[in-house]
Amino acid sequence: MSLNLRTHTEHFTNPLYLESGRILEPYDIIYETYGTLNDDKSNVVIITHALTGSHHCAGIYEGESKVGWWDGLIGSGKTVDTDKYFVICSNVIGSCFGSTGPMSRMYHNLEHYRYKFPVVSIKDMIKAQRILFDRLDIHHVHAIIGGSMGGMQALQFGVTYPKFATKIIAMATTYATQPWAIAFNKVASEAILKDPDFKQGYYDSQVVKEQGLTGMAIGRMAGHISFLSHESMASKFGREYKRDDGLYELFGKFQVESYLEYNGYNFTKWFDPLAYLYITKAINIFDLSRGCDSLKEAMQKIQSELHLMSFKNDLLFRSFEMKEIDIILNEIGNTNHNYIEIDSDYGHDAFLVELDKFKDYIKDVLNG
Amino acid sequence: MSLNLRTHTEHFTNPLYLESGRILEPYDIIYETYGTLNDDKSNVVIITHALTGSHHCAGIYEGESKVGWWDGLIGSGKTVDTDKYFVICSNVIGSCFGSTGPMSRMYHNLEHYRYKFPVVSIKDMIKAQRILFDRLDIHHVHAIIGGSMGGMQALQFGVTYPKFATKIIAMATTYATQPWAIAFNKVASEAILKDPDFKQGYYDSQVVKEQGLTGMAIGRMAGHISFLSHESMASKFGREYKRDDGLYELFGKFQVESYLEYNGYNFTKWFDPLAYLYITKAINIFDLSRGCDSLKEAMQKIQSELHLMSFKNDLLFRSFEMKEIDIILNEIGNTNHNYIEIDSDYGHDAFLVELDKFKDYIKDVLNG
Repeated sequence: MSLNLRTHTEHFTNPLYLESGRILEPYDIIYETYGTLNDDKSNVVIITHALTGSHHCAGIYEGESKVGWWDGLIGSGKTVDTDKYFVICSNVIGSCFGSTGPMSRMYHNLEHYRYKFPVVSIKDMIKAQRILFDRLDIHHVHAIIGGSMGGMQALQFGVTYPKFATKIIAMATTYATQPWAIAFNKVASEAILKDPDFKQGYYDSQVVKEQGLTGMAIGRMAGHISFLSHESMASKFGREYKRDDGLYELFGKFQVESYLEYNGYNFTKWFDPLAYLYITKAINIFDLSRGCDSLKEAMQKIQSELHLMSFKNDLLFRSFEMKEIDIILNEIGNTNHNYIEIDSDYGHDAFLVELDKFKDYIKDVLNG
Repeated sequence: MSLNLRTHTEHFTNPLYLESGRILEPYDIIYETYGTLNDDKSNVVIITHALTGSHHCAGIYEGESKVGWWDGLIGSGKTVDTDKYFVICSNVIGSCFGSTGPMSRMYHNLEHYRYKFPVVSIKDMIKAQRILFDRLDIHHVHAIIGGSMGGMQALQFGVTYPKFATKIIAMATTYATQPWAIAFNKVASEAILKDPDFKQGYYDSQVVKEQGLTGMAIGRMAGHISFLSHESMASKFGREYKRDDGLYELFGKFQVESYLEYNGYNFTKWFDPLAYLYITKAINIFDLSRGCDSLKEAMQKIQSELHLMSFKNDLLFRSFEMKEIDIILNEIGNTNHNYIEIDSDYGHDAFLVELDKFKDYIKDVLNG
């Protein structure tokens, strides 16, 4: 069977009431589906994406060469089997791949929002998704799976809409973003904001894409450090020096420097600077306990079967942070959850690259 | 007794032959001494400084309010007791506090070196110091103590000049800089180089000091992340929000963001961008085994009593890296060394701030 990849955009004219008290109106959500919805709609699996991810999580667009970001996991006969499940992945609001974000145009004057765009939170992102699913006449799903910011969304779904998902798998994430992660985002936001080509938010998107935005490249380099680990860097780059670069040349480069440079500058070709600011803001202010008296109170709302998966050398969202959720769930007598730590040297990136280490677990959860 | 702080500059006209094959000629070294040299010159303690450190490691200059960077450790009646020891700390070549560096003026035309300054290595730094000590008629010292890049110098002294020091204490350092540390330096160098106000190295020092250099501030913010740990950030900042900043304001700030901002921008008032590039380069290319067949061969040269001190949550130079030296020394039957890991949550900064945790150890080494 084929993957049956389809991309759609839904337009919403009802106001989206945000956590901040502000309103987003109107707005679009772009999403992809894979596989076929069964008759009793019992085979829906929601995939939630990370900071720079998109709705394109699997398959390949005609004429392109790059597959979706979790293609190794999702597809015909794969872990998330699209022969069996109807998979939906939507681009979060605030992003830049088709859902409404800071570079979208305002309804009343067709100007870009830029700084007029309201701060959105993880809770706002999943609220918008819930409204999308309502529109699709899907009111309950079999599972939600996400890593990093996708894991935040998965957890927030569990707290905000306790009856929505039968199963939730939250990977490489946290219950509340810690200062270590906020600090890395700070380096990025400062580098973006202070780049003269950012023009205090009034940059020309096309120019930035074509010429690159140095500040965002630098910020992304810092980001990449946070996604890796000492071990993955040591095995991937070691102290290898770039060919032809003299060791005693000031601008000679180690392999790790070339890696950061390439990925940093390449990033500015496909991601929007204002979206980066808004989404990192959403990550920074993420706190599952907000609106509750405590994290414990938030945890008491969860009714889905919850799977918490951390990665041993993840320095961005440490195992300890996932374990903390497990501890609290145990304290309140929740017997419908499981915490698992995956042994990996890949750091935070593990949820994207070490698929073989958790494929079976996810398959068992989905089918079991 | 008083600290007896004295600052001197020595001028050298003989060429300094660098590891790169290049020559530095002439050059100055600025240094401070504390205490009094005894008759048989057996009471000399050398302090080696870190990336942004200076020769001013203790005491206070007239009219200033800030004490030297290791003042808690060095002074009359303190751990490194200046009533007993004659302490010398010099500013490394390549730096910006008085020793010859990239913003010094070339002899033949009085222009600043800028990029004409040769890349210097840790080995070059200690070679210059050794020449300084010769000038002072000091040919053997009781001890060398240094942390971070200062620890690299201490170790390199042990390998290059095996008979020079009776005791060496190397703290929070490594045998060869790993890609994790190089990656952080890369963010900084990229941010400096791409700042338009850096003017491709042809900036006006005075202007940069007065107005700040954004790129260096951003790079320093990344640096500060590497100096801290998840634990120290969590206890120091948590998720505290800056007073009066609304959570849903895009530019609202967490405490950790304010900390990074303050320290980043303040840094540009007292450190030189080109010196930052040159010294981080020296750190990046640091490898104790260079010039030897292996690290083991380098370790075989060491004759000093060697003390290796790491800090548990140091993410920049991990305990494992210091332990590696210990393992090799054990393998080759060196019985004149000790490895100790200090329990601390402060990360790399611990060697500067958690003095109480290792004061006694250092005192015992010096006096025992």
